[in-house]
Amino acid sequence: MGISRILIANRGEIALRIHRAAHEMGIETVAVHSTADADAMHVRLADHAVCIGPPPASDSYLNHAAIISAAEIAHADAIHPGYGFLSENAKFAEIVEAHGIKWIGPKPEHIVTMGDKVMAKKTAGELGLPLVPGSDGAIEDPVEAARIAEEIGYPVIIKAASGGGGRGMKVCNSPDQLETLMQQAGSEAKAAFGDATVYLEKYLGNPRHIEFQVFGDGNGDAIHLGERDCSLQRRHQKVLEEAPSPVLSAEERHRMGEVCADAMRKMAYRGAGTIEFLWEDGDFYFIEMNTRLQVEHPVTEMITGLDLVREQIRIADGKPLSVTQEDLRFTGHAIECRINAEDPWTFAPSPGKVTHYHPAGGMHVRVDSGLYAGYSIPPYYDSMIAKLIVYGRNREGCIMRLRRALEEMVVEGVKTSIPLHQELLRQPDVLNGDYSIKWLEEWLAERAGEEK
Amino acid sequence: MGISRILIANRGEIALRIHRAAHEMGIETVAVHSTADADAMHVRLADHAVCIGPPPASDSYLNHAAIISAAEIAHADAIHPGYGFLSENAKFAEIVEAHGIKWIGPKPEHIVTMGDKVMAKKTAGELGLPLVPGSDGAIEDPVEAARIAEEIGYPVIIKAASGGGGRGMKVCNSPDQLETLMQQAGSEAKAAFGDATVYLEKYLGNPRHIEFQVFGDGNGDAIHLGERDCSLQRRHQKVLEEAPSPVLSAEERHRMGEVCADAMRKMAYRGAGTIEFLWEDGDFYFIEMNTRLQVEHPVTEMITGLDLVREQIRIADGKPLSVTQEDLRFTGHAIECRINAEDPWTFAPSPGKVTHYHPAGGMHVRVDSGLYAGYSIPPYYDSMIAKLIVYGRNREGCIMRLRRALEEMVVEGVKTSIPLHQELLRQPDVLNGDYSIKWLEEWLAERAGEEK
Repeated sequence: MGISRILIANRGEIALRIHRAAHEMGIETVAVHSTADADAMHVRLADHAVCIGPPPASDSYLNHAAIISAAEIAHADAIHPGYGFLSENAKFAEIVEAHGIKWIGPKPEHIVTMGDKVMAKKTAGELGLPLVPGSDGAIEDPVEAARIAEEIGYPVIIKAASGGGGRGMKVCNSPDQLETLMQQAGSEAKAAFGDATVYLEKYLGNPRHIEFQVFGDGNGDAIHLGERDCSLQRRHQKVLEEAPSPVLSAEERHRMGEVCADAMRKMAYRGAGTIEFLWEDGDFYFIEMNTRLQVEHPVTEMITGLDLVREQIRIADGKPLSVTQEDLRFTGHAIECRINAEDPWTFAPSPGKVTHYHPAGGMHVRVDSGLYAGYSIPPYYDSMIAKLIVYGRNREGCIMRLRRALEEMVVEGVKTSIPLHQELLRQPDVLNGDYSIKWLEEWLAERAGEEK
Repeated sequence: MGISRILIANRGEIALRIHRAAHEMGIETVAVHSTADADAMHVRLADHAVCIGPPPASDSYLNHAAIISAAEIAHADAIHPGYGFLSENAKFAEIVEAHGIKWIGPKPEHIVTMGDKVMAKKTAGELGLPLVPGSDGAIEDPVEAARIAEEIGYPVIIKAASGGGGRGMKVCNSPDQLETLMQQAGSEAKAAFGDATVYLEKYLGNPRHIEFQVFGDGNGDAIHLGERDCSLQRRHQKVLEEAPSPVLSAEERHRMGEVCADAMRKMAYRGAGTIEFLWEDGDFYFIEMNTRLQVEHPVTEMITGLDLVREQIRIADGKPLSVTQEDLRFTGHAIECRINAEDPWTFAPSPGKVTHYHPAGGMHVRVDSGLYAGYSIPPYYDSMIAKLIVYGRNREGCIMRLRRALEEMVVEGVKTSIPLHQELLRQPDVLNGDYSIKWLEEWLAERAGEEK
């Protein structure tokens, strides 16, 4: 007997997204919600709804016991965690499975492995994923450091082993500076963290963020669904994502996608995952792996035609992957704009009542959003209120359509990031796909300077 | 110099559809509107707007002089007529071209040829399109009639040459009834129309309506974009359309599509056209050709990925077809529900103010509509207010998604046909694709009987 009723342990657009996939499969849905979300769209549409507590999330969406109870009361036979909240909580996944409820996500042990940064890097290396080359641990001897730096190539970066936040970090461009900078970094680290230990890594000056979507059946079969380019970020928050990446050739996609899929085969990974890389000058460097669905998964859906949530549910239900790597086709171009309830330039959150809402429509325009006119955006959660995803036969056509869609989109009563996206899509660098992960913050700083 | 500003000589969803395609091509738009449509969505979004008169349409949307004046005032270099209104008016097309404005439609002479039912059938026959076999004109001699009936096969239908509305029509199932029924039909025709002349045709008992979308470049190149099945009709009004047809194989599509494309090559047809057939037991019978865009064109866009309005504009601009027959791929399944402001069961129009509007969203769901909350649907025009178009990898998946989308769609303040579509999508015959053009009216009659 397959899954017949899914509890959706999340809120907002992703809860609605999961509800939609379930209903399209003939599966019932159970919404769990905080007292602040009683009027949410997905709660209205779900077959059953259970209130699990007040905001903040720690008292409701993160409350293991309340969610498990709701699943038992509502006779849910599976739980989909969405993204964020409990989606990468291995303990919760274990509890779910211990209750005989299907966990629509990876095996708990893989959540553990990939959730720990050190273990994730070690595992990634063993699985054949390319890492940022470096000293592989602490380094003291300047001669040994020079040898390693020569091997990985300048510029290199010296980092404090106990560090963070930029302190104790020095970029070194040539061998004659290395010893001095190592000493400076060590002193800074000692002063800041009480530990002078430093290590060496290749320095990436202007990397892009490129991530590969993977899917495994849990038994050793796995595929990749190509990459997403998420380089347009502010404070590590993605703002606009696209697939394919403007800088990757079909051959590079195939080669790197296979490296990723192969790693998943070795792990016997189950469900959806995303392997994130920094990319510079044609080389990939592993950052981390997310063992869940990503916010930006729709751009992959647009260029592959595959419904990723449906695929997750199928796999959790013990079914094989619905498509082989050979049959998968990448067609056209897709871009997603994250629309937040916030001031488009100060980024100050703007919760409150939506007095008028009109999503964009027409050909190849998709809106994933729980918004409706009269809905009050609560102040307790993430500010993302809608995702506008647009498809085109090529990147240029996609951007033209996206501009058209943004012109049509109306959200009144709160401030939104729509004006930011409209201005972004007029920037030559964005139109040319010529941006690194630093571009957006630099552009925003420049723009703020001009306005003064 | 290409087209830079298009006047949209229409209203409602199709005016918005054209505006969208134009903006996605970087082309400005001019909306013309009646006094009743000043608040229409496409008027708000267009770059320029000109009021061309009051309702009814004869005083505005059908007013040649007012529209041409608007085009000259607004410096439009092309006119898109949409469907209905002036879209198949050859005289208007000629006036447009005489003013040096590009007509986004077929050559006027082809509008003339295909607009006349008799000439269209004659031309279709010459172009190799299959016709309903029959007596090829009036018939008097019962012996000759019997010979023809034998040739085309029973049942045959005897029709009054001057007739219409069912009077003077007799279905004949066997040779022994033929002479009697001919006499009866002749007498009825004489009484009803003052003319006893009758003719003979093959009788189609339960045909489907299957139409092929064609495109020509005006210079002899032409392609077909596959078929649409529009058999679910009420009083000759299509209610739900799908592509591909549930009854056609890829081979049949290819063979019949080529017959249609070939006919267009012989004509050197320009722009979009639709060749409509009745289909029964594997055979096609030409009904008519529409020399314009059809309401249901989005289902073809969904399974081919081609933007048909963009293609129309390109061709009017003298460009070649953007795709070859060989490169065109048909993928998945698409269904369109026409959503009308009317009582879903009595079909009484329901104009008025839309107090709340929420279109469906999510993956592979497209809504083409000019509706918004607060908009007043005027009583003067067609009752169609939205098209919900859904795509799926196969017909079953498409129907599941369509049901899900219909659940989400909210139009408050007026009655709509949403409940009709929801009930239609629960009928086994619809789920099995097992319906002729008579099915919907029979089902509605049966349903009305049960309710009494």
